[in-house]
Amino acid sequence: MPNSHTSCFRIEFGDCDPAQIVFYPNYFKWMDIAALHFFNACGIESWRQTKAEQGIIGAPLIGASAKFVSSATYPEQIEVDTSVQEIRGKSFVLRHVIRRGETVLVEGEETRIFAIEDPADPKRIKAVAIPGDILAQWT
Amino acid sequence: MPNSHTSCFRIEFGDCDPAQIVFYPNYFKWMDIAALHFFNACGIESWRQTKAEQGIIGAPLIGASAKFVSSATYPEQIEVDTSVQEIRGKSFVLRHVIRRGETVLVEGEETRIFAIEDPADPKRIKAVAIPGDILAQWT
Amino acid sequence: MPNSHTSCFRIEFGDCDPAQIVFYPNYFKWMDIAALHFFNACGIESWRQTKAEQGIIGAPLIGASAKFVSSATYPEQIEVDTSVQEIRGKSFVLRHVIRRGETVLVEGEETRIFAIEDPADPKRIKAVAIPGDILAQWT
Amino acid sequence: MPNSHTSCFRIEFGDCDPAQIVFYPNYFKWMDIAALHFFNACGIESWRQTKAEQGIIGAPLIGASAKFVSSATYPEQIEVDTSVQEIRGKSFVLRHVIRRGETVLVEGEETRIFAIEDPADPKRIKAVAIPGDILAQWT
Repeated sequence: MPNSHTSCFRIEFGDCDPAQIVFYPNYFKWMDIAALHFFNACGIESWRQTKAEQGIIGAPLIGASAKFVSSATYPEQIEVDTSVQEIRGKSFVLRHVIRRGETVLVEGEETRIFAIEDPADPKRIKAVAIPGDILAQWT
Repeated sequence: MPNSHTSCFRIEFGDCDPAQIVFYPNYFKWMDIAALHFFNACGIESWRQTKAEQGIIGAPLIGASAKFVSSATYPEQIEVDTSVQEIRGKSFVLRHVIRRGETVLVEGEETRIFAIEDPADPKRIKAVAIPGDILAQWT
Repeated sequence: MPNSHTSCFRIEFGDCDPAQIVFYPNYFKWMDIAALHFFNACGIESWRQTKAEQGIIGAPLIGASAKFVSSATYPEQIEVDTSVQEIRGKSFVLRHVIRRGETVLVEGEETRIFAIEDPADPKRIKAVAIPGDILAQWT
Repeated sequence: MPNSHTSCFRIEFGDCDPAQIVFYPNYFKWMDIAALHFFNACGIESWRQTKAEQGIIGAPLIGASAKFVSSATYPEQIEVDTSVQEIRGKSFVLRHVIRRGETVLVEGEETRIFAIEDPADPKRIKAVAIPGDILAQWT
């Protein structure tokens, strides 16, 4: 019953900017990937599958934050430790610690919900309860 | 003496993900661009120029956060209102409100410093004081 | 009856890489956006709409190429001239000339088809004939 | 003496677009990474190092092309087989075959040069001869 997961990435040339360090939105991209890898470890194969089975199109963000502690550049290897930090009704907080070895680079948080298409407007989305089998793993 | 600026963007197909809405790290990309547009309005042409003149390679982040209030999709037009919210010694907080017309999509904050290359390690960076001509515009 | 269109972009800090010039996949991103702007000018509002009305989910690529003639960096303004170069049955070739003022930066081509979801496999796509109202504008 | 290399990637949610398939500029991003992994295998650790030692800031593109044979989506695993296809004076052609298992997704080519900063204009770049130790491995 996983409530944490570690994902590994290599910082690439194209992830860095003219200041030679990681272009910061990429840290959120890695957190998003780490979140999906964590969901995979919890038994969610893809949002395509959850959409077909439960109407759930994904787990979009309602909030995200990061503290940038140390800078990093290519071709360094990084690891992201993802865990469930808090559950608040329909929303939940994932904590991501991004490390290069023992050096913490970023401490991040994502607040997410599980969502379906808004029946009233297919261009918008709507929160639903955390699926029971997922909740059982996290509590 | 600008302490705020509005930037305009069009959400493109490639900015959206399989859930049909903006892939969230892109909001941080737009905040980063809005920050640079704001710095441009304050008289900073490019980090290339500040590096040549003052050694300043950029204004990297030490923190970033966002609340995602409403979802958005292509081909919608958005505006980002950027302002200096707070100055804390060497660091400063930019507030970004991302809107589609009157609808607030995202409320974001970036905490930044002005940085030079670390003389001790060219792969790392180091904070310096906010340049006087910039500080004068913000206070 | 448009068979050409010009799109404008500003090269941003985050579009550039540690070599200080545009990270090259971004030129294809701009071509993709320019293609969509061109389709917009031809009366296609969004693929969401074409999917609802005709089942067409987009105009995916079957080929793309670019010659990189001059380098560019931020914060330069660029323009992309997009035109239909050739129609080959179900496929068509868009030509994109990316310029900074009079200086040609990139000469690109995209070969695209109009596509629907493959009825046999929703994870795959299938080519359909170019819609008549579009073809009429291009020939 | 490597003249070919295989790189592995996982297609992520954020690599895909509203048509549910890979957003095509990402294939060029993977080719760029695969090229760098190949250069790594040839003994180039980073462009930072080559810049310090030889003034070489990278191996920028003068051309790129791709044929998109089959579509792909997340969370599929892909492999990129990179090899030197041709050497033409200062330029060289890398061939990239992107596969999902035995299924070819993309056949790509990148034509690159080794470059230094243009002494006449630091915002521009200039081609130099392929370094001898690299050339020896490729011929």
